[in-house]
Amino acid sequence: RINPDRLWDSLMEMAKIGPGVAGGNNRQTLTDEDGEGRHLFKRWCDDAGLTMGVDKMGTMFMTLPGTDPAALPVYVGSHLDTQPTGGKYDGVLGVLAALEVVRSMNDLGIKTKHPIVVVNWANEEGARFAPAMLASGVFAGVHTLDYAYGRKDLDGKTYGEELKRIGWLGDEQVGARKMHAYFEYHIEQGPILEAENKQIGVVTHCQGLWWLEFTLTGREAHTGSTPMAMRVNAGLAMARIFEMVQEVAMANQPGAVGGVGQVKFSPNSRNVLPGKVVFTVDIRTPDQGKLDRMRATIEERAAAIAADLGVGCSVEAVGHFDPVTFDPTLVGRVRSAAEKLGYSHMNIISGAGHDACWAAKVAPATMVMCPCVGGLSHNEAEDISKEWAGAGADVLLHAVLETAEI
Amino acid sequence: RINPDRLWDSLMEMAKIGPGVAGGNNRQTLTDEDGEGRHLFKRWCDDAGLTMGVDKMGTMFMTLPGTDPAALPVYVGSHLDTQPTGGKYDGVLGVLAALEVVRSMNDLGIKTKHPIVVVNWANEEGARFAPAMLASGVFAGVHTLDYAYGRKDLDGKTYGEELKRIGWLGDEQVGARKMHAYFEYHIEQGPILEAENKQIGVVTHCQGLWWLEFTLTGREAHTGSTPMAMRVNAGLAMARIFEMVQEVAMANQPGAVGGVGQVKFSPNSRNVLPGKVVFTVDIRTPDQGKLDRMRATIEERAAAIAADLGVGCSVEAVGHFDPVTFDPTLVGRVRSAAEKLGYSHMNIISGAGHDACWAAKVAPATMVMCPCVGGLSHNEAEDISKEWAGAGADVLLHAVLETAEI
Ligand SMILES: NC(=O)NCCC(=O)O
Ligand SMILES: NC(=O)NCCC(=O)O
Repeated sequence: RINPDRLWDSLMEMAKIGPGVAGGNNRQTLTDEDGEGRHLFKRWCDDAGLTMGVDKMGTMFMTLPGTDPAALPVYVGSHLDTQPTGGKYDGVLGVLAALEVVRSMNDLGIKTKHPIVVVNWANEEGARFAPAMLASGVFAGVHTLDYAYGRKDLDGKTYGEELKRIGWLGDEQVGARKMHAYFEYHIEQGPILEAENKQIGVVTHCQGLWWLEFTLTGREAHTGSTPMAMRVNAGLAMARIFEMVQEVAMANQPGAVGGVGQVKFSPNSRNVLPGKVVFTVDIRTPDQGKLDRMRATIEERAAAIAADLGVGCSVEAVGHFDPVTFDPTLVGRVRSAAEKLGYSHMNIISGAGHDACWAAKVAPATMVMCPCVGGLSHNEAEDISKEWAGAGADVLLHAVLETAEI
Repeated sequence: RINPDRLWDSLMEMAKIGPGVAGGNNRQTLTDEDGEGRHLFKRWCDDAGLTMGVDKMGTMFMTLPGTDPAALPVYVGSHLDTQPTGGKYDGVLGVLAALEVVRSMNDLGIKTKHPIVVVNWANEEGARFAPAMLASGVFAGVHTLDYAYGRKDLDGKTYGEELKRIGWLGDEQVGARKMHAYFEYHIEQGPILEAENKQIGVVTHCQGLWWLEFTLTGREAHTGSTPMAMRVNAGLAMARIFEMVQEVAMANQPGAVGGVGQVKFSPNSRNVLPGKVVFTVDIRTPDQGKLDRMRATIEERAAAIAADLGVGCSVEAVGHFDPVTFDPTLVGRVRSAAEKLGYSHMNIISGAGHDACWAAKVAPATMVMCPCVGGLSHNEAEDISKEWAGAGADVLLHAVLETAEI
């Protein structure tokens, strides 16, 4: 078993970097705080005897050598970046539990045939630079490096510039590494495990996603002196599209979600009807056919809503992944580890996207999940217990050791 | 008659300060550009022999002495501040036409019994600091100086700090000046004069306004892993409120408008349902009873919409003025000036708010309007012709001279 106190202490220590305003964290990717978090993590890895490689996306690979020089490594990790008002565990738990696996192996003098690589993927959240899981996406060959470097935050700064600025531009070719297997441990971010009173989620699938960025073009005009009949009201078109997305999601129950998290009005002045409105619709479902039908319906109905108001409407897909089926052998190892350790468990489909989804394109991959209070995540109030954290890390240890071969 | 070429040249010269991105201006109140515009205007006033007073709100009063030392001045002006993506004429025409009135008087050697004061009111637009017409509101005793100083822009900077920073904090008590009369010349900002093919709008009334700032409180949560039934979706509540505002405005036709220009999502991340949504509803009508009924209906229906979704809803009125009836004597002088000069004219109700609305509380006041192309304003493409600009300035000259007594 791992050391739950040490894991918890590390979580609390990391949470001191980039504190939020309500008990959580704001350690967004490629900010100074992200840099500080990386240095702390590196120091811990140095102490554990791991050697570092950093790739051209800024992903950190920390290696514990194996006994067989020819054996491919088992990769275990997640991400240290957070949402602007994120929790202390989303991603961080997966990285620090992977470190705890190695620390426990050191304590117990366990050696494996395959090297173990603890990974901190860059820009998982996608909050600052869309899409999410950007570095693992480049690693898996889904995006080019140029595409990734050109992604812009709301201030217009690019990923490439900011990676250089914080000093974490590495020299490794992205995706050059070959993996024997990839494991990721994460909080559920949803309500199911807690409701079902299970300690461990055995993650069999991940739902697919589309991020549809709409740009609506209205006519900038005075809110007072412009008669209703003369308005080309992009804000009203947006409102109707929000309602329609809700309808489409509800019509696809069970097993589908749809909503909007980001909106930008221009010029955003109280007495000016917006000339431009940009927002991103986020739709997800584990069913490939349903996912693509929802996208088509939303685009078609949005175009009709906009046309009806004389508003221009264009759509760009700024994020996407297909539903994922995780590797049955690795899934089986997670399940039997939970079984062996006496932890209650159930199969679960991940509602959120994870670097494991992209890793699954280039290696056998799977995930372990623990519950989180009230299913709440992407909220500073996100919470888990030390016991939950420890149970999942125990399962991770056993599944990893079985795969890396003692 | 005034010199339309000189007026036009001054308009074009001022428009070089704080250029926009599409041919208009971004010279928002208390920015460096506003400071630059004020210096240019002061230089022109110095050249015309006017003496300056500045009050504690930063409003500039430029005086041409009268022949009777005991006579109260006739005030003529508007504002030099613009929207973030504003036109070259909104407000600026009124200030520079007032200057042109004085320049023409100098040319023609006309002296009046009453002094003439050319005014540049501070923060008319209300784009950076709500409410609009802030300095004239303090002048008229509608707001306290402390309230005005505490108004914040989206970056949290206050009016008081910014006024000091740009160096235009004057020493005059706000509202200490007494006015014999107040005139304001402005572009219509609506489509009526152009559609009716009239050169001059004789402004009899101004419609009233409420700016209702809604704060909706949802639950920040993951857009992917949060089931539809668990969402406390403030973005959806906002969408329904937008649609409802549109319905209320349409149900109050003719002679009412309603819309939204400013929206802020928090944390504004693509994969986070917003925890907080703030937006401002702008409703207007010339009918006092209708205005207050619309407000009550919107607040009541918004509360129900929010409650239905479990979303918290609070409302703050961040801008308000009652419908205004302008002084019949001054209105009559504007009409007879247009008549005498041979300009086509019609009575009109101002759709936008103006400093004249507050001045009307403390003095006889009225306005002159000229058409603008396509009724477009609060848009960089706002446009007028030199002839339109000149005709209104001629009417202004005659109405002012009649009031200031040659
Ligand atoms: N786990 C997580 O929150 N990832 C961010 C990408 C997503 O929106 O699913
Ligand atoms: N004239 C003008 O645009 N004033 C700004 C205040 C308003 O929104 O009516």
